[in-house]
Amino acid sequence: MLNVTYERAVAAMEQGLLRYLPADKAHHFAEIFAGNSCDGVHSHGMNRYPRYLSDMESGLCDANVTEAERVSGLGGMEVWDAHFGVGPLIAEQAALRAVELARTHGIACVALRNNSHWLRAGRYGLMMADAGMAGICFTNTCMNLTAYGAKQPSVGNNPITLALPRRKGSLVMDMAVSQYAYGKLEIMAQKGEMLDSPIGYNERGELTCDPGEICKSGLMLPMAKWKGSALSIMLDLLASALSLGRTALVIGKPSDGEKGMSQVFICINYAAVVDADAVDAQVEQTIDYLHSLSPTEGAGVHAPGENLAAIREKHLREGIPVTEATWEKIVAAGEGVSSGI
Amino acid sequence: MLNVTYERAVAAMEQGLLRYLPADKAHHFAEIFAGNSCDGVHSHGMNRYPRYLSDMESGLCDANVTEAERVSGLGGMEVWDAHFGVGPLIAEQAALRAVELARTHGIACVALRNNSHWLRAGRYGLMMADAGMAGICFTNTCMNLTAYGAKQPSVGNNPITLALPRRKGSLVMDMAVSQYAYGKLEIMAQKGEMLDSPIGYNERGELTCDPGEICKSGLMLPMAKWKGSALSIMLDLLASALSLGRTALVIGKPSDGEKGMSQVFICINYAAVVDADAVDAQVEQTIDYLHSLSPTEGAGVHAPGENLAAIREKHLREGIPVTEATWEKIVAAGEGVSSGI
Repeated sequence: MLNVTYERAVAAMEQGLLRYLPADKAHHFAEIFAGNSCDGVHSHGMNRYPRYLSDMESGLCDANVTEAERVSGLGGMEVWDAHFGVGPLIAEQAALRAVELARTHGIACVALRNNSHWLRAGRYGLMMADAGMAGICFTNTCMNLTAYGAKQPSVGNNPITLALPRRKGSLVMDMAVSQYAYGKLEIMAQKGEMLDSPIGYNERGELTCDPGEICKSGLMLPMAKWKGSALSIMLDLLASALSLGRTALVIGKPSDGEKGMSQVFICINYAAVVDADAVDAQVEQTIDYLHSLSPTEGAGVHAPGENLAAIREKHLREGIPVTEATWEKIVAAGEGVSSGI
Repeated sequence: MLNVTYERAVAAMEQGLLRYLPADKAHHFAEIFAGNSCDGVHSHGMNRYPRYLSDMESGLCDANVTEAERVSGLGGMEVWDAHFGVGPLIAEQAALRAVELARTHGIACVALRNNSHWLRAGRYGLMMADAGMAGICFTNTCMNLTAYGAKQPSVGNNPITLALPRRKGSLVMDMAVSQYAYGKLEIMAQKGEMLDSPIGYNERGELTCDPGEICKSGLMLPMAKWKGSALSIMLDLLASALSLGRTALVIGKPSDGEKGMSQVFICINYAAVVDADAVDAQVEQTIDYLHSLSPTEGAGVHAPGENLAAIREKHLREGIPVTEATWEKIVAAGEGVSSGI
């Protein structure tokens, strides 16, 4: 494992992105990858960079499109079309547009269709929190989980984020509707660990606690059985309904590539209608209470995202941990690209 | 088990409610109890009627208050105060106010503080769906679950509903963030059934698969471990923030009674910005696909709420199933009350 400074990570990824994007867009996209890793969300930061480059190379993501087009709107509700462009750049625009609309309308929703992978859900909730507003954002995905009651990949893990501003560091929940990411199961399998309950099927269609077998089959169940399955179906249908965008069924199987997701950005300007200082005080009261609970394990109970600022600071100070293999890919992708493009 | 017609159920409950409410309010509140049972949600229908009467008797719910007061607003975002009034009557007003606001503003949010128990979350989502709009509603509750990482009742089960109109019968997910209701665990315990994973603690603070022990201790974990716990914390903090209402911590333990919840009603008028017929067609496409999956059990895969219309029709035709004990309480509560009050 290497520790790479944030600045060095941005510079290296920017270099490879210059193959596909103009300088300002390449720089900011590199900041997004590095920033997500810096916040500790490695799965949707630098680790994902090589795959995103290959998606732009293959055309799964159209690097020529870096802005969405407004389709329609009424008051605080707008529909935009990303035309299969660069996911995180366009998702940020959608989040900021929702913030802008919520200033006037109190609450706003930008429903975005045909966007590429937005990387990390929490990023967009945090952008709203940075503007002093609450955020509810969700996306659909390809069908990477088996619906409860079936053995085929048939529903998405559809990440959802809930965010709330907080003076001492905003709170953010960023959650896919599977108990684990496949990447996490792979790591458990490498360590020889077993799951404590059967959350997927093996290739013979039998329920199993073996994470390696679930990775091989690609047949993981949603979290919480029928509840996660229902949540997944509704998030998919809501996201595709509000944007008139693609459903998980149309996006297809993981092997189809993951093209043209439906994404929803709801932003709530509660500070315009209630005393935000009083809200902050009662949030602290709950967090103090959670900290006071006798923990069953060492770490104790925390509010979602509460430790994010500390993780970010640590990585800015000590560098972002990245595997040698990923770093080699990042450096190789930038070789031979003139930064004066 | 008895089968009671919808009309008879309404008439019987109306009688008892006349002790506390004027005739029109008593009648409609009786319709809400009977309607929820008629939709198959027995836990938040007639079964809950005796307890609601005693909450009005004790003053936990103030039967003199049947309308909320508007506190503040900006565009589609409004804050209302229920002043500890009659929960479901006021929650319906909030849902309808959100629908009204969404007609003009595209999206609307009514944040309601100090409301009594709203009974069934899905009711309010369905009201929005009946108006052709999508709904996202959630409430906080008392601290009836243990946060992940602790052994004390410390977070709520905070039900959330997601609803989407559909020509063949609207879709609605109505989900608390526990895998089971305590009532369901009681039924499992009576049947001698065990859970397939340890989702709570016994009175000695040990994880257990015995539903009876979890009922005794009141120490159930949220669904999906840290994920349900995070979802619960965020729903509580969001609901109390948007309304500047009480947090789960202030509402307290189940033994404190469950007084003055914070509730959120988000309504999205997507039909104003996209072609609702095209949405309906792609929703059907997904539902057809879910039905086509090879089921692991007999029932197969369904979209949330898909069978609701059939359940309602069956109960309207054949009567609503209710235990003798509950029916006796309902009848007894109405005795000696003049319907000409």
